[in-house]
Amino acid sequence: MPAKKKAPAKAKSSRLITASKDLVADVALANLILFDHDILDGFGHVSARHDKDPERFVMARYVAPGIVVPSDIREFSLDSEPVPERGERHYSERFIHGEIYRARPDVNAVIHSHAPPLIPFGTTGAPLKPMYHMSSHIGMGVPVFEIRNFQNDGQMLIRSAYLGRSLAAVLDDKPMVLMRGHGATIVASSLHLAVYRAIYSAMNARLQMEAMRLGGEVTYLNESEVEYCTGPEGVENTCERAWALWQRESAGKKR
Amino acid sequence: MPAKKKAPAKAKSSRLITASKDLVADVALANLILFDHDILDGFGHVSARHDKDPERFVMARYVAPGIVVPSDIREFSLDSEPVPERGERHYSERFIHGEIYRARPDVNAVIHSHAPPLIPFGTTGAPLKPMYHMSSHIGMGVPVFEIRNFQNDGQMLIRSAYLGRSLAAVLDDKPMVLMRGHGATIVASSLHLAVYRAIYSAMNARLQMEAMRLGGEVTYLNESEVEYCTGPEGVENTCERAWALWQRESAGKKR
Amino acid sequence: MPAKKKAPAKAKSSRLITASKDLVADVALANLILFDHDILDGFGHVSARHDKDPERFVMARYVAPGIVVPSDIREFSLDSEPVPERGERHYSERFIHGEIYRARPDVNAVIHSHAPPLIPFGTTGAPLKPMYHMSSHIGMGVPVFEIRNFQNDGQMLIRSAYLGRSLAAVLDDKPMVLMRGHGATIVASSLHLAVYRAIYSAMNARLQMEAMRLGGEVTYLNESEVEYCTGPEGVENTCERAWALWQRESAGKKR
Amino acid sequence: MPAKKKAPAKAKSSRLITASKDLVADVALANLILFDHDILDGFGHVSARHDKDPERFVMARYVAPGIVVPSDIREFSLDSEPVPERGERHYSERFIHGEIYRARPDVNAVIHSHAPPLIPFGTTGAPLKPMYHMSSHIGMGVPVFEIRNFQNDGQMLIRSAYLGRSLAAVLDDKPMVLMRGHGATIVASSLHLAVYRAIYSAMNARLQMEAMRLGGEVTYLNESEVEYCTGPEGVENTCERAWALWQRESAGKKR
Repeated sequence: MPAKKKAPAKAKSSRLITASKDLVADVALANLILFDHDILDGFGHVSARHDKDPERFVMARYVAPGIVVPSDIREFSLDSEPVPERGERHYSERFIHGEIYRARPDVNAVIHSHAPPLIPFGTTGAPLKPMYHMSSHIGMGVPVFEIRNFQNDGQMLIRSAYLGRSLAAVLDDKPMVLMRGHGATIVASSLHLAVYRAIYSAMNARLQMEAMRLGGEVTYLNESEVEYCTGPEGVENTCERAWALWQRESAGKKR
Repeated sequence: MPAKKKAPAKAKSSRLITASKDLVADVALANLILFDHDILDGFGHVSARHDKDPERFVMARYVAPGIVVPSDIREFSLDSEPVPERGERHYSERFIHGEIYRARPDVNAVIHSHAPPLIPFGTTGAPLKPMYHMSSHIGMGVPVFEIRNFQNDGQMLIRSAYLGRSLAAVLDDKPMVLMRGHGATIVASSLHLAVYRAIYSAMNARLQMEAMRLGGEVTYLNESEVEYCTGPEGVENTCERAWALWQRESAGKKR
Repeated sequence: MPAKKKAPAKAKSSRLITASKDLVADVALANLILFDHDILDGFGHVSARHDKDPERFVMARYVAPGIVVPSDIREFSLDSEPVPERGERHYSERFIHGEIYRARPDVNAVIHSHAPPLIPFGTTGAPLKPMYHMSSHIGMGVPVFEIRNFQNDGQMLIRSAYLGRSLAAVLDDKPMVLMRGHGATIVASSLHLAVYRAIYSAMNARLQMEAMRLGGEVTYLNESEVEYCTGPEGVENTCERAWALWQRESAGKKR
Repeated sequence: MPAKKKAPAKAKSSRLITASKDLVADVALANLILFDHDILDGFGHVSARHDKDPERFVMARYVAPGIVVPSDIREFSLDSEPVPERGERHYSERFIHGEIYRARPDVNAVIHSHAPPLIPFGTTGAPLKPMYHMSSHIGMGVPVFEIRNFQNDGQMLIRSAYLGRSLAAVLDDKPMVLMRGHGATIVASSLHLAVYRAIYSAMNARLQMEAMRLGGEVTYLNESEVEYCTGPEGVENTCERAWALWQRESAGKKR
């Protein structure tokens, strides 16, 4: 049972994509980069707002992130329905993406992951705090989404527009939201910045756990440091330097 | 002393295998996947119930999991004896497999490992609990097998049908059993699901140790969440998406 | 958008470099070695004092350490300005390097990193102490730089000569300085020794965190042990043996 | 400065080796295996007693373990002097090996490492105890060598026959000795078993640190379990299965 994806529909497929070729390639690459940095594994998904139509977003069809290629990328409406409908299987949690794009015009990329270092924070309520300049966005606030507040049938996934809206409401105007017993969703004004934030959020979680165990008081970034580092002169503007590296590594890796 | 296996008996060998070629290939691949995910190393074993004869199971002969190939797969009776007997060396703990298949008609795959993150739980009696939806099967219960309750000669391994039956009795109707000072045994209705459970059980153990150290209260999945996530609409049904990734990675890896 | 660097200016470029070819190659390689050992990632930088002009130092232009090649190496004055000025972008924190070379004639190499294991120490004030002979330089003293003592606009980076001088003053005559909420800067009399110290400083931090959690008292190297191990007969003189390994690994790695 | 070793003396070199070709190859391979398992890095060494002359042992000349090849292997007397003397540089701590072979006729292999997980135990005095059957040899006893009891000039290394004898005396009849602020030395009746013990000693240390932090009581192997597992029917007899894997991995790895 080879895992290769079938090629037949390919020619037709690319004609159905109206987003720019560069954006499609970047979203596919973001999947690989996040997989290579242990943010995504066989699960999770990354999307970007369509670059010509703000009422759409692009994301892979039902494929494990570690093996996404550009021809897997599809377009979705803000109702999180594939456009056009091609009878394919899609991530059941695609509502995370559509509802956040609808609620947050400033957001152009969304990453949903089960990144391991974030799970203990979402599960205990220990607040995630900004350890260093690289993850200053954490200082903007990291709410925790408790799904039990919105339904009580034991379902853990965001499989409806209602739950997507609920998640977006808890996310509010923040850069990320932890999801208890599930994972995290991270947003940004650009795909590259969202990838940067996903990688350094996980790093921050690892570092914070270590620091909390050292026994003393931890000096987190203060308000003015967070403001500066996430501002126009701040650290987040250097994410293109890292992207150039990640691109080289992940695009060039034999799989 | 080259580690290459001898080829001569190969033609004969394949005629002695009555299970389907696909199952044999899948069991060999499961060895590599579990090795690549640090669940197995030079030790441990994975088996599947024979797909044409429920009174048999298939498993590798005495070979380290990281280098198993399809021609290493053999058939065994539920007495854990090789069928046919070919004078080869076999895992001394094969009774784990035969006795579980006998006691549990619902089980079609068994994985025995020394996965490092599970050892501290088996050794301290700290209960393993379900951290997130990915490892919801842990919420079905994880008993601990204490071999001292069944014999007292200092032997730690399941080298007899008696100990195999004892282990199966402690496993009961659960998806996994920890073995004090030894490892764990994980079962499932399919080989792919068993591999999924093995990988995310180890991840759960890592995450739970981190969460327990954060100092606050940990909110584990509750009963209805466990029921939903392990049910027909639950997370475990998505394991084929991950298998496609694992297959690509492990089958394609140069060794 | 390929990440390849443009080649046109290359011929001209090499004529602008007055440091020896070997030094330039070594600085480029040090970037890769430190990247491969998780000391640098997409960020951080490593420099060496110019081998023919002690009033200059060599360092990469604005490129992620993991992809630096010899043709990226540039020369800088002790004012941390590129010589000659070629209109290129440079690391905004290059003042770390220039000001340390100015203040410390004994220093011939400077590494600035965000090495993860060092962050919890810089952030909590838990003192880093020498766990074993491999990291005996830590026993010479590891001050912590608190940028809030020198400016208060929320900026975390060493983006001015003033802050560079302030950092150098806190570093004093020590082999390294932790930077709260930021990272660390490590110096040595040679590039190879600086790389050695960077790698084993991070290892010491990891080991010390584990030792502190074991609950008993930790026996660190005492004064005479630190003196011996950092002295002419000491462990640091064996760093060439490790360099030969690191060079083989990192220079030969497909990227 | 290429790291390649010079070839000229090779023909002559091999004529100077009187141990069997297989033993020489195995010692070189053991270096690579231990490097690939993070037991050795640029430092540490592994030796085996000469298979034709018990008054000699074989070990690499002064080369980082990760790049040792068979032509680097030399012979040494029990005085830890090279035989014949060829004017080459050797590990300054070779006395560890000679003095242990002299004191322990049952020992045929010695590994000296700075394996990271063992350092916190040597440094705190927290006793290393046997977590599971894979590391049952730890239950035979693990003394700690405190060099301050034997000299007080601050020197940390075993650079003399006197210190080698002192270490051997503390090791006594045990399978390993921790060295405070330095590392560990592990011995066995065969090279393959010594490699096995080195790998699973480090794993035991990792698992024990995790178990101790879980907060409950840890159930270590008891006396009869240690006796059984290290005995003729015990786990240690299966190390050839793992060796076949390690050989395949490390010998086949592109370096």
